Amino acid sequence: MDFLECVPNVSEGRRPEVIARLAAAAASGPGVRLLDVSSDADHNRTVLTLAGDPEGLHLSLLSLYEVALAEIDLTRHDGVHPRVGAVDVTPFVPLGGTPMEVAVAAAERLGQEVAKRFGLPVYLYERAARVPERRRLAVIRRGQFEGFPAKLADPAWAPDFGPARVHPTAGVTVIGARFFLIAFNAVLDTADPEIARTVARRVRESSGGLPAVRALGFFLSRRGSAQVSLNLVDYRQTSLLQALDRVRREAEALGARVVETELIGLAPEEAILGAAREALLLPELPAGRVLERSLTD
Amino acid sequence: MDFLECVPNVSEGRRPEVIARLAAAAASGPGVRLLDVSSDADHNRTVLTLAGDPEGLHLSLLSLYEVALAEIDLTRHDGVHPRVGAVDVTPFVPLGGTPMEVAVAAAERLGQEVAKRFGLPVYLYERAARVPERRRLAVIRRGQFEGFPAKLADPAWAPDFGPARVHPTAGVTVIGARFFLIAFNAVLDTADPEIARTVARRVRESSGGLPAVRALGFFLSRRGSAQVSLNLVDYRQTSLLQALDRVRREAEALGARVVETELIGLAPEEAILGAAREALLLPELPAGRVLERSLTD
Repeated sequence: MDFLECVPNVSEGRRPEVIARLAAAAASGPGVRLLDVSSDADHNRTVLTLAGDPEGLHLSLLSLYEVALAEIDLTRHDGVHPRVGAVDVTPFVPLGGTPMEVAVAAAERLGQEVAKRFGLPVYLYERAARVPERRRLAVIRRGQFEGFPAKLADPAWAPDFGPARVHPTAGVTVIGARFFLIAFNAVLDTADPEIARTVARRVRESSGGLPAVRALGFFLSRRGSAQVSLNLVDYRQTSLLQALDRVRREAEALGARVVETELIGLAPEEAILGAAREALLLPELPAGRVLERSLTD
Repeated sequence: MDFLECVPNVSEGRRPEVIARLAAAAASGPGVRLLDVSSDADHNRTVLTLAGDPEGLHLSLLSLYEVALAEIDLTRHDGVHPRVGAVDVTPFVPLGGTPMEVAVAAAERLGQEVAKRFGLPVYLYERAARVPERRRLAVIRRGQFEGFPAKLADPAWAPDFGPARVHPTAGVTVIGARFFLIAFNAVLDTADPEIARTVARRVRESSGGLPAVRALGFFLSRRGSAQVSLNLVDYRQTSLLQALDRVRREAEALGARVVETELIGLAPEEAILGAAREALLLPELPAGRVLERSLTD
């Protein structure tokens, strides 16, 4: 059976009752499991992690878009994380032996329906991109919600589905297919966002850092500290511990320290066991060495 | 249902066909699962990890003792690890919500039967000990197989079950009940066993080191390197990473480095996730954050 993860990122991270309604909508599809809800008030953003078959996820996501469009007004939204839509980005991720094509098909089907039903401009990204320039989410998101009307004046930015006109309160939405991504943030002992931004620049692949790592630097006013926000797009190329070690070294070179980290959503067992394995200097650590895993296999 | 782990340590780590027969015997009890077999040629020892209910494990262990007594002759056994018996030590460990009393009862029942059936002197240790001096395995094992006849001349060392006379080829056996123990070895980049012994002394609880840590230093001739062998008897008091960090620091103070480690048998998920959590500076890392665990819960 085809089995997908879907990780919608919604532009609401502060109102608990709205987050609860978004989560309930996301969980409503038949057979869909809501595995995690991670909200951040500074980012003003919630990441929902769902798993299910393509049909169940399609129905869950339509409910989620409906609730998000009713509840979120981007003209009143602020947060440190860049965003272009009420439902900012919706990636589908193949799980187990499911082929990537199934995730691409789920993205296309959802994009068409969301455009038709809600009048939202839809951009397909990463493995679902139809235009090479749209593979990278950061490129699509450039200019953010506020800058998108100007961007849409350029015919090269006509959406893949839906009208070439920004929705007044919900902006646009980005839907796609990709491999498993680990979102991992490092909180610094400084309030200086410039340090976090410099560390992010030195760590990320696009400016010559670690392979398969994306990074941004933020200031989290609620915590009063700066944060390096990491996306590991292939933890087999750069592991959690390798990324953290590099962030620690770059921060130390600027006189700052990593005080703690956070994992957003879920991480594959292989990546977590990998962190334990590397830290413990074990040549290998298969899941079968973990008592509980060994008992349930 | 009562559910136990049982981790017999057998004095054979070199002959693959004998190890296979021992493993098959250990797996033979109804409903018993053989979770792991870890053999070491330098130690000349095999650690078998079993899980099952008390009745199934009882039958498995009787088969294991029978095969071990037929195959192992301690008068011809050498290895760096201390041992007193062909089946050197057999601990029962409660799993899940099973009370410690169930493990103690399993140890007593097996001890009585093994003494009767095979004429083996049996010592009950740790939570099953009937004499305070027999709580610690290291104290029972002192003098090893070769020194046991002299030890048995002292009435204070009369066995808990069986004859006060060492079995000519199988020695004695130690059976007991304890909490989950993690066996974890650190291999050094030196061939000097004195460095490993010094590190072990500085790390272990009994000489003022880390709580709930036992340690011995060995020379592994097959690898040509010295090893610090650790038993973490309560990983909540001293974690894998804390123990390793201390071993690394003590080794470095003596000019040596830890090149790799090995995990013998299994470790509880909480201990492995704990290593990842500590290394990654995460405030928490529940199993629910691991994708595969989240899907099967």
